[in-house]
Amino acid sequence: MSMQRIGWIGTGVMGASMCRRLMDAGYTATIHNRTREKAEPLLARGAAWADTPQAAAENSDVIFSIVGYPRDVREVILGPTGALAGAHEGATLVDMTTSEPSLAEEIASRASQRSVTSIDAPVTGGDIGAKNGTLSIMIGGDEQTVRFLEPFWSALGSKWIRHGGPGAGQRAKLANQTLVGMNMIGICESLLYAHRAGLDLNAVLESISSGAAGSWALSNLAPKIIRGDFAPGFFVEHLIKDLEILLDECRRMNLHLPGVELAERLFNEVAAQGHSRDGTQSLIFALAKMNGEDWHAAVKT
Amino acid sequence: MSMQRIGWIGTGVMGASMCRRLMDAGYTATIHNRTREKAEPLLARGAAWADTPQAAAENSDVIFSIVGYPRDVREVILGPTGALAGAHEGATLVDMTTSEPSLAEEIASRASQRSVTSIDAPVTGGDIGAKNGTLSIMIGGDEQTVRFLEPFWSALGSKWIRHGGPGAGQRAKLANQTLVGMNMIGICESLLYAHRAGLDLNAVLESISSGAAGSWALSNLAPKIIRGDFAPGFFVEHLIKDLEILLDECRRMNLHLPGVELAERLFNEVAAQGHSRDGTQSLIFALAKMNGEDWHAAVKT
Repeated sequence: MSMQRIGWIGTGVMGASMCRRLMDAGYTATIHNRTREKAEPLLARGAAWADTPQAAAENSDVIFSIVGYPRDVREVILGPTGALAGAHEGATLVDMTTSEPSLAEEIASRASQRSVTSIDAPVTGGDIGAKNGTLSIMIGGDEQTVRFLEPFWSALGSKWIRHGGPGAGQRAKLANQTLVGMNMIGICESLLYAHRAGLDLNAVLESISSGAAGSWALSNLAPKIIRGDFAPGFFVEHLIKDLEILLDECRRMNLHLPGVELAERLFNEVAAQGHSRDGTQSLIFALAKMNGEDWHAAVKT
Repeated sequence: MSMQRIGWIGTGVMGASMCRRLMDAGYTATIHNRTREKAEPLLARGAAWADTPQAAAENSDVIFSIVGYPRDVREVILGPTGALAGAHEGATLVDMTTSEPSLAEEIASRASQRSVTSIDAPVTGGDIGAKNGTLSIMIGGDEQTVRFLEPFWSALGSKWIRHGGPGAGQRAKLANQTLVGMNMIGICESLLYAHRAGLDLNAVLESISSGAAGSWALSNLAPKIIRGDFAPGFFVEHLIKDLEILLDECRRMNLHLPGVELAERLFNEVAAQGHSRDGTQSLIFALAKMNGEDWHAAVKT
């Protein structure tokens, strides 16, 4: 079997870069996206268009998907014109969306009834990691299949780890998102306090960022908060989705995580203030508003 | 003026290493500690002993202090046999304890009435930073005096920043401690979720520690939680002290920081479980207990 034919469903910022890396590595891609327009650059480079996820799957050995929400994953894989309906026996589905562990289990189970293997493989590393092939890929599913897919992992990521059976990749990603949410609360509260205390925020950052308080987010996102740059690296609405998936999992497990619960509440507050499509660093607006501060005005002084 | 004679009050783990660095740099030290025993190694290297902070100050141009709690700072500096009572006109007090900004202001004010200058200069970098002279020093107080003290800062730290007048060093340190507390909640909730989800914790750490979830604490303290090592790098009871100072400041400022309030509650819970003198990573026990888990048993399986 050649394994050269891939299907790719979802050509957003992440998906487009990732699919392109596989095409550059020599794979022939049939692609589908909800809005065809976003797929044009890949079509111009030789990808074939498919009108449905089902059609993208029909001629492919491995069908990747990276879409928005769990409901989108359900539709593009399990829906009436979804990838599973088109996948041939022995094909592999690889969903790279950050989605529900329980949905990953359901997909794997329904796929196996049709002799199709399903792997969940969400990533971290953002748009830059997607472009440069330096993602960290968290994988759940059949061990042999995961090994078999190594050429793909190595084209997309600099690190890939199988965390267990179906859903385990999603669970590892949720552990990651816990920290993404919590670290941001810490940064925003720290900066808000320092601002109220009359300190120069850049000087504070210089003092604290290389020690025990240091984090990727402090080095990369706190400077944006200070200079008033709220452009999205990672959308507030996507982090809310992830935190809500995590809290659903927690309810099922009878697990009470007060920090995550606080994060979910605060990010929903900032979304309600109109920041859904801003970067997660805009969390500062929720904490500022709660305290009668106007952060935009604050950073302009 | 020679500036070669220093007083040093507080020879605990941090203080002993820091004083020793100054002695190695050529300064003559007169030292005081609540329990003389802990000062013995420095006395053996040629430091002079003083029975009181006042006596340590009498023959010194610069008098450093690094003790436990704000009440200890008050006693060793402002008490009847405190350093201020012994300091000569033109001397400088440098308190390096993490303490109350308002107390630093009060000390500076009372010192100036006696023509003594007081500087607050708490540090981060831990015992290793103290030993190697790689601390980050956060400084508040008179600008000219801070410049004048540069030989001391450079012997003790690899980074020193003046954040403003009296109390500003303490306020910058509180911004740091906000992150120390919050990052730890994130780590513990992430690991507890991953454990409940049946994942291999070391594999999860490997997947998430170098990306957007990464932090100093994740790289340095999460592995200790996983292998069951709760020896103190930084005591739970000291972080509680810092968070309570911060919340006192916040109340004065009408500042509501829900994350810090949660951290203060959780660290107090773990202290009540008997972990006051364990490292901050023992926070996992509070979250585990709340969820009916026995973390010691969990990490042994």
